[in-house]
Amino acid sequence: MDRPVQRLTQVGEFGLIDRLRAIVGVGGGAVPLIGIGDDAAAWEQPAAVLVATTDLLVEGVHFDLGFTSWRDLGWKALAVNLSDLAAMGAEPEWALVSLALRPDLGTAEIEECYAGMQALADAAGCTIAGGDTVSTPDRMAINVVVLGSVPAGQGDTLLRRDRARPGDRVGVTGLLGASAAGLYALRHPEHCPAPVREALAGEHRRPQPQLLAGRLLRTAGVRCAMDISDGLLADLGRICAASGVSATLEAARLPIHPAVLEAFPDRALAWAAAGGEDYQLVFTAPPAVFEPALAALAEAGVHVTEIGVIDRPEVVPGRPGAALVHLIDAGGRPVPLARIGWDHFSAEAAGEEPAE
Amino acid sequence: MDRPVQRLTQVGEFGLIDRLRAIVGVGGGAVPLIGIGDDAAAWEQPAAVLVATTDLLVEGVHFDLGFTSWRDLGWKALAVNLSDLAAMGAEPEWALVSLALRPDLGTAEIEECYAGMQALADAAGCTIAGGDTVSTPDRMAINVVVLGSVPAGQGDTLLRRDRARPGDRVGVTGLLGASAAGLYALRHPEHCPAPVREALAGEHRRPQPQLLAGRLLRTAGVRCAMDISDGLLADLGRICAASGVSATLEAARLPIHPAVLEAFPDRALAWAAAGGEDYQLVFTAPPAVFEPALAALAEAGVHVTEIGVIDRPEVVPGRPGAALVHLIDAGGRPVPLARIGWDHFSAEAAGEEPAE
Repeated sequence: MDRPVQRLTQVGEFGLIDRLRAIVGVGGGAVPLIGIGDDAAAWEQPAAVLVATTDLLVEGVHFDLGFTSWRDLGWKALAVNLSDLAAMGAEPEWALVSLALRPDLGTAEIEECYAGMQALADAAGCTIAGGDTVSTPDRMAINVVVLGSVPAGQGDTLLRRDRARPGDRVGVTGLLGASAAGLYALRHPEHCPAPVREALAGEHRRPQPQLLAGRLLRTAGVRCAMDISDGLLADLGRICAASGVSATLEAARLPIHPAVLEAFPDRALAWAAAGGEDYQLVFTAPPAVFEPALAALAEAGVHVTEIGVIDRPEVVPGRPGAALVHLIDAGGRPVPLARIGWDHFSAEAAGEEPAE
Repeated sequence: MDRPVQRLTQVGEFGLIDRLRAIVGVGGGAVPLIGIGDDAAAWEQPAAVLVATTDLLVEGVHFDLGFTSWRDLGWKALAVNLSDLAAMGAEPEWALVSLALRPDLGTAEIEECYAGMQALADAAGCTIAGGDTVSTPDRMAINVVVLGSVPAGQGDTLLRRDRARPGDRVGVTGLLGASAAGLYALRHPEHCPAPVREALAGEHRRPQPQLLAGRLLRTAGVRCAMDISDGLLADLGRICAASGVSATLEAARLPIHPAVLEAFPDRALAWAAAGGEDYQLVFTAPPAVFEPALAALAEAGVHVTEIGVIDRPEVVPGRPGAALVHLIDAGGRPVPLARIGWDHFSAEAAGEEPAE
């Protein structure tokens, strides 16, 4: 940074807004009628099905500036919302950003955060249209809202959680486990050689929302999907709960990230199954739709893997309507997560040191 | 409450979402294609000019649960956003709510918060369509986004900050000073008799977004307005800065809330001029538009007062382009805010005890 460090308290709210306006103005994209600096943002919207999502990130809970740069934080705050739009099969249009900032911060940090957000907005064709900037004495928070759309009249083609049916195949985009492995490698650098650590940390810091995959799934006739934020098993479990079904996944088919397998062979399966923050899409469809959808994704260069099937709902005594995801080995036997290191990972995820 | 107290940790994220869905389902209004519980909310949107605004409230900065009930907090979190839409002249349509919650909270508190939000959403014709619920170890935060609209092609009729011109008259809706007086009365109950205290506290806790006034101003041809969140002088100063003009207000014309005048005669003018959180609208228009607009508001039962004029920009040595708001007495002499208790109020507003 060539410029002298400036505290937020020196430039004030309006000085900061001017700086941020300059950053988001670079992106091109659609021009709002009214952008940053008025009571609200405004734009001309043709008839469409609008899709809106919001995510709130809290310092110390969802991000740790010891492991994440400001630029990566901006990227990720937008990425998790774009991932929700991808999971609906919608195209992003507009984003609004709310920041609660500590008074000890300088303008450079916030500008870096916006630059990271704008880099992804450019790539995704999304306009940062406005927001709110407030102060907080200690714990920062970032809320991002993204508005997207599909063409008018196509609301029934959106990818939903409650559309899985017995007999559906289950697929997943991309490779799994790298984000959780990256976070572990950042916390325990001594357990991972530097080049692998950097590669995995990059996956953790800069998730790639699967917008192309979501669009292709929707136009191929798939109707059930969600993005993997809390782990494949947990999120597919939500699809099962919403749809009133259960699912069976073959452990050997999970597309584990090769760097995770190489660096952490004992934990790779647990991270791929339950590690979270991969921001890939898990989806289900009847075979007649599933096969051509897989082909369309592969043709567009999207990595995609068939990993299991949707079963009838399970009746568990004392848990009426309980919906479950089973992980099985090649012989059809259940793979208990405890045996593959799930408990260990769970403690890691909670930020505690596992009792080894 | 008849039900046993339930901690958030007992019902979990999905138990909480089920409860909130039941509350917001009561409101009627437009039916979303996809509501609470999927990756995103979705609805069919006819062609329109969309208007979007977001506000982030942080515990201990923007609200204090010692002075505000959960129900009032929900109301206010939505009200401040609806006030931004009113300041554009737009109609509200949809809201998304993000909550960062402490683990010590029970579900009853959050349900109360949503009930307060829904009460205002019902009154304003707004649908709570979704959101995000996350945990925080300590300091709560609430982010609300509201989407509104004006008819397609009417984007140039929106009420903006940068449209004030020399010769415009300046008007304000409602009565001023009650919110700041209410906060003071809550903090210093010994200085205010109980009935007046309750009335003023109600103004502080449950601001009424001026949606009808905003709509009438826009349709009457007014093009410049904003809502008063930081105080009349500060917010009119923002209009002046954005428009490149200055303004002169007559202190004797400010519509001070009568209960404030009665309970706090020495501070009433300072609170009306600079107290903040009144969520009334300040607007400017040339006389040919201003007069009929005032008549239209008055006919609809909206209290409205002419308080001053827009002047040419001032040139202040060393502050190029500085835009200022002058408060004058009946003889045209400047009214220094220090003399009317501004310094005292400033310290109050910052949450500090003034040095008396």
